[in-house]
Amino acid sequence: MSQPAPVPSASPITPEIEEALATVKRGCEELIIESEFAQKLARSRANGKPLRCKLGLDPTAPDIHLGHAVVLNKLRQLQDLGHTVIFLIGDFTSMIGDPSGRNTTRPPLTREQIQANAKTYFDQAALVLDREKTEIRYNSEWSEPLGAAGMIKLAAKYTLARLLERDDFAKRMRENAPIAMHELLYPLMQGYDSVALQSDLELGGTDQKFNLLVGRELQRHWGQEPQCILTMPLLEGLDGVEKMSKSKNNYIGITEAPFEMFGKVMSISDALMWRWYDLVSARSNAEIAQLKREAAAGRNPRDLKVLLAQEIVTRFHSRAAAEQALAEFEARFKGNAAPDDMPEVKIVAPQGLAIAQLLKQANLAPSTSEAVRNIEQGGVRINGEKVADRAAVIAPGTHVVQVGKRKWARVVLG
Amino acid sequence: MSQPAPVPSASPITPEIEEALATVKRGCEELIIESEFAQKLARSRANGKPLRCKLGLDPTAPDIHLGHAVVLNKLRQLQDLGHTVIFLIGDFTSMIGDPSGRNTTRPPLTREQIQANAKTYFDQAALVLDREKTEIRYNSEWSEPLGAAGMIKLAAKYTLARLLERDDFAKRMRENAPIAMHELLYPLMQGYDSVALQSDLELGGTDQKFNLLVGRELQRHWGQEPQCILTMPLLEGLDGVEKMSKSKNNYIGITEAPFEMFGKVMSISDALMWRWYDLVSARSNAEIAQLKREAAAGRNPRDLKVLLAQEIVTRFHSRAAAEQALAEFEARFKGNAAPDDMPEVKIVAPQGLAIAQLLKQANLAPSTSEAVRNIEQGGVRINGEKVADRAAVIAPGTHVVQVGKRKWARVVLG
Repeated sequence: MSQPAPVPSASPITPEIEEALATVKRGCEELIIESEFAQKLARSRANGKPLRCKLGLDPTAPDIHLGHAVVLNKLRQLQDLGHTVIFLIGDFTSMIGDPSGRNTTRPPLTREQIQANAKTYFDQAALVLDREKTEIRYNSEWSEPLGAAGMIKLAAKYTLARLLERDDFAKRMRENAPIAMHELLYPLMQGYDSVALQSDLELGGTDQKFNLLVGRELQRHWGQEPQCILTMPLLEGLDGVEKMSKSKNNYIGITEAPFEMFGKVMSISDALMWRWYDLVSARSNAEIAQLKREAAAGRNPRDLKVLLAQEIVTRFHSRAAAEQALAEFEARFKGNAAPDDMPEVKIVAPQGLAIAQLLKQANLAPSTSEAVRNIEQGGVRINGEKVADRAAVIAPGTHVVQVGKRKWARVVLG
Repeated sequence: MSQPAPVPSASPITPEIEEALATVKRGCEELIIESEFAQKLARSRANGKPLRCKLGLDPTAPDIHLGHAVVLNKLRQLQDLGHTVIFLIGDFTSMIGDPSGRNTTRPPLTREQIQANAKTYFDQAALVLDREKTEIRYNSEWSEPLGAAGMIKLAAKYTLARLLERDDFAKRMRENAPIAMHELLYPLMQGYDSVALQSDLELGGTDQKFNLLVGRELQRHWGQEPQCILTMPLLEGLDGVEKMSKSKNNYIGITEAPFEMFGKVMSISDALMWRWYDLVSARSNAEIAQLKREAAAGRNPRDLKVLLAQEIVTRFHSRAAAEQALAEFEARFKGNAAPDDMPEVKIVAPQGLAIAQLLKQANLAPSTSEAVRNIEQGGVRINGEKVADRAAVIAPGTHVVQVGKRKWARVVLG
């Protein structure tokens, strides 16, 4: 039974609102619906009531890398614009686990495990977010009281056909792959979270877009103004190609040591640097535009990479740690700074690769025996660090590899 | 997570069990699975534990006619064989109503209304059933405590594809007609009732077969021996063609007066009489077989119809009322017994028909003016009762109409 959503009275879209909108949109995949969100921003400005910005979290994976920080960064921008962030922990369904029993890697979590995971997650996320403007909520608060009757009433608000529009459901239907009935209920539960929270904006990955739209529709059913939706892209990892993930080993963990973090940022390509500026930097649009102008006027991209690396290390550690990492980085590469245009080589080696093999395959040595000689002579550095053990095995990941003074390569192992 | 159902130890299928099986099967549309049910009967006989026979009821329509008595009659046979009948009142979903709001004729019922309806239903059903062997249960007892989490776990036991095998869902999918998500949950809720009740046998109309099968499958998931399923056909009404229903006005209400009831049974065709013997008579298979032999040997079918009418009146009123109805019926038709082979005439007249029109259209009078003359002369009887008012309007239904001594017709108005 659809109730008419209240029609917001129009507030003026000032240049200040336009600017806030541009900040929110920066790097995003899609903002649904931009004009609606501009109106929400304007009204919030007029009535002083912060917008409620929701991010749903699966409390099973508390180990955050820079890819996760993309959405946190966006939330921080929203906080800096005066709005409230709601960290929604999906404890209700996590306590159920996968009731079909098909997915044995997703056992039900206890309330204690969930709270511990949520705490770990939040402690990490707090490096980006403003704690004061962050609400932490658990969806069992309103999902449990729904009861069996509430579930049926909720299910009545949505048709099967609408749910089957979701890409993965549609694909499975076409391929006659089974869809267990509870899987169809999850998007409804998630949408109902937005109703319960009276969410103004929900953030998510592009793969979440369908579920976020369900929330919009359910809010209309409950007579609420529908939330807007901001989907953020997945961040490309160190290699600049694959999405950042632990399994691809192309990530920066946000708890990694300052020097590791700094070095990894310095290893990315120039193109990727600009992408990361958009997605993970707290700098304003104006500042980034200025940096781009400077690069166009001939400023060395390496300097801009240093700025980015310092900002990231500062955020996750401290200003002092960032200064120290820079000093250490420059000391190691003293006199032999990595060239900006070093070749990039990809080597398929999911288990890592012996150092001599790596040098040969990356064309840094004509043979493995020559490579061994280079190692023993102390002429081989990986990410600025000397490798003297000819038996060393280099782990998958992106590495800046140097042989002697002149031979460089960015090697992507994986 | 399917658990293995316990394998029942085989019990001998004695001639007595064979006979019980034949009684249960009489008149049924389908018994799923016959060999399983024979085994349940045999085991019950061996261990003295009655079978649990479930009938689910919608507590919205407490006014029972002879069509509803078909399944009650079957339940009574099961009780007479020593088994337990469970009247399951579907109060849980009735209290929800139709949450999609599309069906405004199905408002939610209060607990009080449901209990009042259930009482009315049971008071009527008790005319057929053995109260001592009847358990009345309400499914809110186990559905409410399921909670939202239990609903999700229940939903996980079934795939969408399996639910879409149900004819009406499949049809709506093909025709792109909407299926609201809660409609898909109802068969699961109904199936879960069988789990909660540890049902051995579930009865229902043929249109319920799919839902009853869901119960079988869910019981397997819960490690129970699956229930058997007995579907009963819908009883043909007085006209012998359409299914008995109030809206077709071809029914016998079980609270109708003895003489009305008696007369209506006497008005059915011979073929329908045998059908009714199978479906609504409490006589044993052996007795019915004997009556058929007598009919084949030349016994007047009218006598057999009298036996059936008396049995039905006795069941719903009393032996004395049945005797009196017979006496009254014979007195009215004294000397002018209705012939067994009277023509049957159907007249489309959903609002009923003026008596003179009826006589003309049924070919019992050459014109309406001749019909009026017959009425005024006192020569017209409907169901044995003289009609002297030329303005009388005959209600829809099946009527034995007589003009003078010789002209008869069974008129189906509707």
